[in-house]
Amino acid sequence: MFHSAAKSLSVASTSLYSRSFLLRVRHYCDKAPLKLRISQAFSTADLGKSVKIQGWVRSVRTQKAHIFLHVNDGSSLQSLQVVAGAELNDQLLTFGSAVEVTGILKKSPHQKQAVELEAQRIHVIGECDPVDFPFKIKERHNLEYLRQFPHLRCRTNAFSSLLRIRSEATAAFHSFFKDNGFVQIHTPVITSNDCEGAGELFQVEPSSVGDAHREFFFSVPAFLTVSGQLHLEVMSGAFSRVYTFGPTFRAENSQSRRHLAEFYMVEAELGFLRSLNDLTKVMEDMFKSTTEQVLARCVEDVDLFHRHVTPGHRASVDAMLKSSFPVMSYSEAVEILGRSTENFTFPVDWGCDLKTEHEKHLVKHCGNVPVFVTDYPYRLKPFYARANQDPPQNTAAAVDLLVPGVGELCGGSLREERLDVLTAHLEDAGLEDTYDWYLDLRRFGSVPHGGFGLGFERFLQCVLGVDNIKDVIPFPRYSHSCLL
Amino acid sequence: MFHSAAKSLSVASTSLYSRSFLLRVRHYCDKAPLKLRISQAFSTADLGKSVKIQGWVRSVRTQKAHIFLHVNDGSSLQSLQVVAGAELNDQLLTFGSAVEVTGILKKSPHQKQAVELEAQRIHVIGECDPVDFPFKIKERHNLEYLRQFPHLRCRTNAFSSLLRIRSEATAAFHSFFKDNGFVQIHTPVITSNDCEGAGELFQVEPSSVGDAHREFFFSVPAFLTVSGQLHLEVMSGAFSRVYTFGPTFRAENSQSRRHLAEFYMVEAELGFLRSLNDLTKVMEDMFKSTTEQVLARCVEDVDLFHRHVTPGHRASVDAMLKSSFPVMSYSEAVEILGRSTENFTFPVDWGCDLKTEHEKHLVKHCGNVPVFVTDYPYRLKPFYARANQDPPQNTAAAVDLLVPGVGELCGGSLREERLDVLTAHLEDAGLEDTYDWYLDLRRFGSVPHGGFGLGFERFLQCVLGVDNIKDVIPFPRYSHSCLL
Repeated sequence: MFHSAAKSLSVASTSLYSRSFLLRVRHYCDKAPLKLRISQAFSTADLGKSVKIQGWVRSVRTQKAHIFLHVNDGSSLQSLQVVAGAELNDQLLTFGSAVEVTGILKKSPHQKQAVELEAQRIHVIGECDPVDFPFKIKERHNLEYLRQFPHLRCRTNAFSSLLRIRSEATAAFHSFFKDNGFVQIHTPVITSNDCEGAGELFQVEPSSVGDAHREFFFSVPAFLTVSGQLHLEVMSGAFSRVYTFGPTFRAENSQSRRHLAEFYMVEAELGFLRSLNDLTKVMEDMFKSTTEQVLARCVEDVDLFHRHVTPGHRASVDAMLKSSFPVMSYSEAVEILGRSTENFTFPVDWGCDLKTEHEKHLVKHCGNVPVFVTDYPYRLKPFYARANQDPPQNTAAAVDLLVPGVGELCGGSLREERLDVLTAHLEDAGLEDTYDWYLDLRRFGSVPHGGFGLGFERFLQCVLGVDNIKDVIPFPRYSHSCLL
Repeated sequence: MFHSAAKSLSVASTSLYSRSFLLRVRHYCDKAPLKLRISQAFSTADLGKSVKIQGWVRSVRTQKAHIFLHVNDGSSLQSLQVVAGAELNDQLLTFGSAVEVTGILKKSPHQKQAVELEAQRIHVIGECDPVDFPFKIKERHNLEYLRQFPHLRCRTNAFSSLLRIRSEATAAFHSFFKDNGFVQIHTPVITSNDCEGAGELFQVEPSSVGDAHREFFFSVPAFLTVSGQLHLEVMSGAFSRVYTFGPTFRAENSQSRRHLAEFYMVEAELGFLRSLNDLTKVMEDMFKSTTEQVLARCVEDVDLFHRHVTPGHRASVDAMLKSSFPVMSYSEAVEILGRSTENFTFPVDWGCDLKTEHEKHLVKHCGNVPVFVTDYPYRLKPFYARANQDPPQNTAAAVDLLVPGVGELCGGSLREERLDVLTAHLEDAGLEDTYDWYLDLRRFGSVPHGGFGLGFERFLQCVLGVDNIKDVIPFPRYSHSCLL
């Protein structure tokens, strides 16, 4: 449907072309030129044809008799070289301007590209003043500079590559789950639950009601979700395998390179699952399958990051894919950290929460590959984690996946499916009424089950080696910043 | 990975089986039984094999020498018939209980199903008290009754079918856009914009700060998005074709069958697009392609709705798919409505907004197929709609897609790409500073472009014939209701 021929034909400029060339042009001008996206133009299938392309000028070079443009339409990282006679030059042909070019697709004499477009007509659709435009021709602006222009940074090579990769990575996660029989569930953004029982929540109310004595819109306080897990548990009780992929929120006053107020999580829940071993297998398969798909489908875009943004990172990614992810218990992790000669800011004792510095040390200890840490102290984990009932330690069947450069990428656990154990824990916390519906899931056909969540932005950071989480999401939101 | 053989083997009960059957059983018991999801068991590829299935009991029938169960695990609408000797009966085998069954997959003597499972072992994993369980065996509960149990309704045939269809429909939209070269963009949920300039917004602030003199978390007031359009326009200026599929919000105090406070929108934006005609073509292709995919991939689940929930609706859907969607201008629509003998609650004059009663009449007028209405009065449309500059009428290049039973399914427009026209309109509205970044999109390489949004729940209502929007979303949110 997107190949519909344009209705108007332009007249070819004649002065510069040979007779045989003109005959070919006339032949093709009998038909409307073929409208192509630039990624399609690189296939040599249309060589010799009259085509029309549309895009934005990424470079302009003028010689005596010719001008050379690079035109990009976002369909790929590569821009198409356009060659035109000098008489087609126009002072409006500047970096950033939008153009429509009609001409003949020819074999390029240059090694870098297989094809180029011999222009017959160049029409500037939208001007771009090079003085006002914040990006300059031939300058490589760093990611921090680009962050100031959330509405324009997608027009740069680096950020357009990032967003194409993000789109493919999203598709890769959907494929993985679909291929393995998971049902996708749109878990709600607005919820009356607080899944984690911790962390700062955003509250939601209509903006127009100003007074403090108002009723709640939903009759109860309502928050932005911090996790779709509890809603997925509902669904795993019907479909066995379910997942969700959507925005989640934390109202943390953080400016860190690893946190956002709005970020994306991939969460999965599996019924009839009895061991952490079965869970880590799914997590490892998912990580490898999606990473491989991204590397295979976004060769040029990923290469831009691995060459120019984070040189050397590709070897690290290849090492992750080749490795069988090691598994260690929390107790083993504490032992390893205790034996280390590294000077940690936070001391390590059995029972303490692991900090980023500890996580990074464990990853390094394992040879800079992803590592699973299992069976954390029960009291560190939320009420839904399954108790191992292994006194005197009292651990929970919970697992984190730590990855190089990022630290915690995934967190998961078996869930407490035993009605009596769960009821006792909720009663201890005074939450048995709030979560009466959750207890229903254990009253009626309860099954052993477990699941995990993956931070999607951290996944992109890990695969691409991008240091700051604000550079892997289209419009980052964090404390004091909500541009656009 | 999900085929891993179980480690423990059960001993086959012997009393009821023939010698040759037992020999076969022994043969297969040498190996661990094959773990199958129920949808896989229906393929006759595993006939004669020893298998293990896990799921929930949907029916129990006891005869003298045998018991018959139907077990469902959510992988398909169909339950697997399990046949067992009476000695395997257990009083805990009730409707809704969770079971694990090991046995031999056999050709079924019944016409309804190709295979059945001859059980050797039945293990009740999770009990279900039939008195407390809100759903009763063999009763068909209506959708309104089910709505009271958002945590359990996914265990019924109707709602589990709905959610499998919703999952496939989601995949169908992603496929359509991917196949046509669109980049998926995660447009933000929290935004400092008010895209429509109308409609009630939800405001977002951390829950912990109670006093009125607090600072805004994001330094500015922040809202839940009502549309990703403006953010998509940013991206269409780099990728030409982009789309988003995510939650959107309206704080409207409505209990209607057509509105929710949280709902899903599919939105697309196309650069280098010059006519409404090109836009309606994409909208029509998308509607037909995704509907056909849903009908093809969810045959049984859709059939349940078309037979039992909304009998006769299939013919209506087929008629939509066969039709070329008619296009009429707003002016023509007003003429048709003016000539009608129907008694409308709201009178119709050129310049008025069309109400649901008018939309339904137009759809009926066209023979109950989807219809495009174009070129609405400019003053009815938001600031970004492209002015047709056709005095004295002064219309905008905007289009709605109206569909049977639902009314407005999609709304779209060409966007005002001309810097001078857009600046004048924003100045008239006193919004030129707020939308200075949006004007930047027209200052730097502006191109003609347009896009549209589709209400995903309304799409499901339209395809399935479901009357109430609360029955096509996992966890409906509306005024005074935010269960779970």
